[in-house]
Amino acid sequence: MSTPPFAPRGTKHEIEEGGALEPKFDADGLIVCVTTEHMSGDVLMVAYMNEQALRLTLETGIAHYWSRSRGGLWRKGDTSGQTQTVVEMRTDCDQDAILLAVEAGGDGKACHTGRRSCFYRKVLPGKDGTHLVFTEV
Amino acid sequence: MSTPPFAPRGTKHEIEEGGALEPKFDADGLIVCVTTEHMSGDVLMVAYMNEQALRLTLETGIAHYWSRSRGGLWRKGDTSGQTQTVVEMRTDCDQDAILLAVEAGGDGKACHTGRRSCFYRKVLPGKDGTHLVFTEV
Repeated sequence: MSTPPFAPRGTKHEIEEGGALEPKFDADGLIVCVTTEHMSGDVLMVAYMNEQALRLTLETGIAHYWSRSRGGLWRKGDTSGQTQTVVEMRTDCDQDAILLAVEAGGDGKACHTGRRSCFYRKVLPGKDGTHLVFTEV
Repeated sequence: MSTPPFAPRGTKHEIEEGGALEPKFDADGLIVCVTTEHMSGDVLMVAYMNEQALRLTLETGIAHYWSRSRGGLWRKGDTSGQTQTVVEMRTDCDQDAILLAVEAGGDGKACHTGRRSCFYRKVLPGKDGTHLVFTEV
């Protein structure tokens, strides 16, 4: 299945209340994507998609991203086996963010550090300064 | 309580495995923030913080953002009453994203459209093209 081009951005009302996907890519051609684990609802990671990554995610049902560090398309799991199967995709009011709920393949560790989620540290303020506390070893 | 300045960015290992908050602000001085509803775990919104907003969020326990559209600091709820009390803050592996779990005040509607979450539309691919389906009226 080939996805037609995304609709051009309409009026504020069309973007917020309409039924057309009119994603807003930033100056670098990217849109932010929050990826959650479908079963737990936990936020696994925040990544970015360019138009091609968003299109491929829709067409294949497998999460694709744009790696800003490597400067390339990134089908997550191609090297690690941790492919993400999309259970649900959402967009937000002004359509400048994507929310994915996924089933994580492989060992389910979404983070390149070997952890399930990239958000493995709590930020705790304190009188001696802010510090981080690990929630996943 | 006044928060000391954030630590300068260290090595990759220090950033990923260390106990110091070393947030990475982008070229516009912003860091992306995903805000979830503490009780349900649902993602409510994606917003941005500058250094001042992150500092004030840590100091007060109330979510502060930087409004890109208005170009100003934004203590959410100041006009709407939907103040967000931070239950937990996390950061991710490379410390270029913040995750907040909040208790939403007022009527609990985080979205400016009057909905609980900004992610009130599913994105559905189809042979007639991608379209959006409302999950919250």
